[in-house]
Amino acid sequence: MKTVVLGMGAWGTTFAQVLADAGNAVVVWGRDSDTAREITQEHTNSKRLKGVTLSPLITATTDAEEALTGAEIVVVAVPSQSARTILAPLAPAVPRDSIVVSLMKGVELDTDLRMSQVLCEVLDIPLERVVVVSGPNLAAEIAAKQPTATVVSGIDEANTQTVAQACSNPYFRPYTNADLVGVELCGAVKNVIAVAVGMAQGKGFGHNTTATIITRGLAEITRLGLKLGADPATFPGLAGMGDLMATCASPLSRNNTLGQHIGRGLTLDEAISVTGGTAEGAKSCRSVSELGVATGVDMPITNAVVAVLHKGLPVDDMTRELLSRPKKSEIGGNVIENL
Amino acid sequence: MKTVVLGMGAWGTTFAQVLADAGNAVVVWGRDSDTAREITQEHTNSKRLKGVTLSPLITATTDAEEALTGAEIVVVAVPSQSARTILAPLAPAVPRDSIVVSLMKGVELDTDLRMSQVLCEVLDIPLERVVVVSGPNLAAEIAAKQPTATVVSGIDEANTQTVAQACSNPYFRPYTNADLVGVELCGAVKNVIAVAVGMAQGKGFGHNTTATIITRGLAEITRLGLKLGADPATFPGLAGMGDLMATCASPLSRNNTLGQHIGRGLTLDEAISVTGGTAEGAKSCRSVSELGVATGVDMPITNAVVAVLHKGLPVDDMTRELLSRPKKSEIGGNVIENL
Repeated sequence: MKTVVLGMGAWGTTFAQVLADAGNAVVVWGRDSDTAREITQEHTNSKRLKGVTLSPLITATTDAEEALTGAEIVVVAVPSQSARTILAPLAPAVPRDSIVVSLMKGVELDTDLRMSQVLCEVLDIPLERVVVVSGPNLAAEIAAKQPTATVVSGIDEANTQTVAQACSNPYFRPYTNADLVGVELCGAVKNVIAVAVGMAQGKGFGHNTTATIITRGLAEITRLGLKLGADPATFPGLAGMGDLMATCASPLSRNNTLGQHIGRGLTLDEAISVTGGTAEGAKSCRSVSELGVATGVDMPITNAVVAVLHKGLPVDDMTRELLSRPKKSEIGGNVIENL
Repeated sequence: MKTVVLGMGAWGTTFAQVLADAGNAVVVWGRDSDTAREITQEHTNSKRLKGVTLSPLITATTDAEEALTGAEIVVVAVPSQSARTILAPLAPAVPRDSIVVSLMKGVELDTDLRMSQVLCEVLDIPLERVVVVSGPNLAAEIAAKQPTATVVSGIDEANTQTVAQACSNPYFRPYTNADLVGVELCGAVKNVIAVAVGMAQGKGFGHNTTATIITRGLAEITRLGLKLGADPATFPGLAGMGDLMATCASPLSRNNTLGQHIGRGLTLDEAISVTGGTAEGAKSCRSVSELGVATGVDMPITNAVVAVLHKGLPVDDMTRELLSRPKKSEIGGNVIENL
């Protein structure tokens, strides 16, 4: 099956490897001609995946039309807040019958749209053609071929199955889930929670606090998801709890790292500079907070991250406030309402 | 309020400090006269809580009758598999109107009883008088007065509230939950899951695998709990997901450490010796597995831990099996059935 990956970052390149190791020919597209040449000729992407040898089934190009011609599966792995800008010029070249796979996690600023919705708009395709891959999937570990489970989600069962089969290999194990809304929300909000966890860790708090914020964070994601029509079973699954834990545990997560720098007293600009890359949660937190307001869902952790990053709230006040909420009963019929 | 803590271990001593910092006089009872003297005279417990200065409101004794006379709250913090033996001779001295608090986590070998049930039997008291404290509560962090949330659970609301108030202080924040069965099961099974996570980590697997095993582990606990009448809301809460995460994340957890040694190739005896202390999960796994068999609940992670620790299954086979379960759909109406 001809597969294309749009994006030459760590996760895009790793997913190209996953597809190749499942027996597919893969063309990676990106704008950096040096990296394209390196992937094709040397089978490495030294800028983004140090020390990893890529499959010879992977080639790369900066020519989008060449890449996309005849593609059956088009994987989008570009920074989520830039997706609309990057994809608009490519849209005419995306084959009409291809399946479009989103590896992106975030909610678009200004529009508050999930990435599948952005793809439908910018590529002018029906939602049936969009499939999302999300789970506890740290790229570096998958690139090292460590056994990993993931969730493949779409509203069209056949397309979802096609993608699941196309990326199934001895170390990458996809589980399907029809709850696209829930899976995407988990992927977007977990980055925000990871920033909050990082802030607390940067302040010197330990595992008890981390576990408490993650637990309440999942409750917060669940509340929002249920209001938006998600399946409650998604949240304790791999795309929910699983991904949230992996992200919050990993020292490789930019969101967690950014939060830690803020916790240690850096300004947002300083923290972004030191972190050295897109911390999706620092952007998405505003859209997620707006979704909370629009749906009337209480999102104290997300709102606290917004307040610290974008409204000047001292991080000390934020952690104190988060850890001293007034509720006294953990369960009042439904823990989701009370945590 | 006169409170007594039975047990001079790290968690018992830390909880004594929590009670003292909430304004209570605390008498700690244990069999080690040197430690008793040290706690009373020097306000330290250097064997179990290095570097921590204890409140002058805490005294200690080896005389159980002296300790228990007039006690309104009796906190039990002894190793769970030894609880019956240790408590039997103390039973007559426990005041008839006291509340008995269990800090113990485990399921008793041979009887398959939860700790609250063991307390009722050995102290000959009704379940109404028993309250359980459980949550993401690593003793060392609480002893350092880091802000921590916990769950206080009992079937009698007044007694539960009394305990919650008695241990509420500026850094220790109790939430009440009436689901005693769920809270206790979470506390027992999480130790088993932590052993499994340790095994995978010892084999060299990273955050993706850890997150996947923890996610499936919580699903396993939830399945068992629901069958035994627990409230589904307990499992994604602080005593469930929260405690599981803290235990699996902490390098201080004996269960996790023991699993890591096994994963690196040590025998159980060698691992116990190197770990240097009770790894509750290594014992409880058999009782938990038996509960699974008795209730017809599929518990693949627990069974795998039993097979490796007690039936000679090579740890390589165990991790391979756990990571290659045949299920393909994450959700079939209920994720709990399918993870």
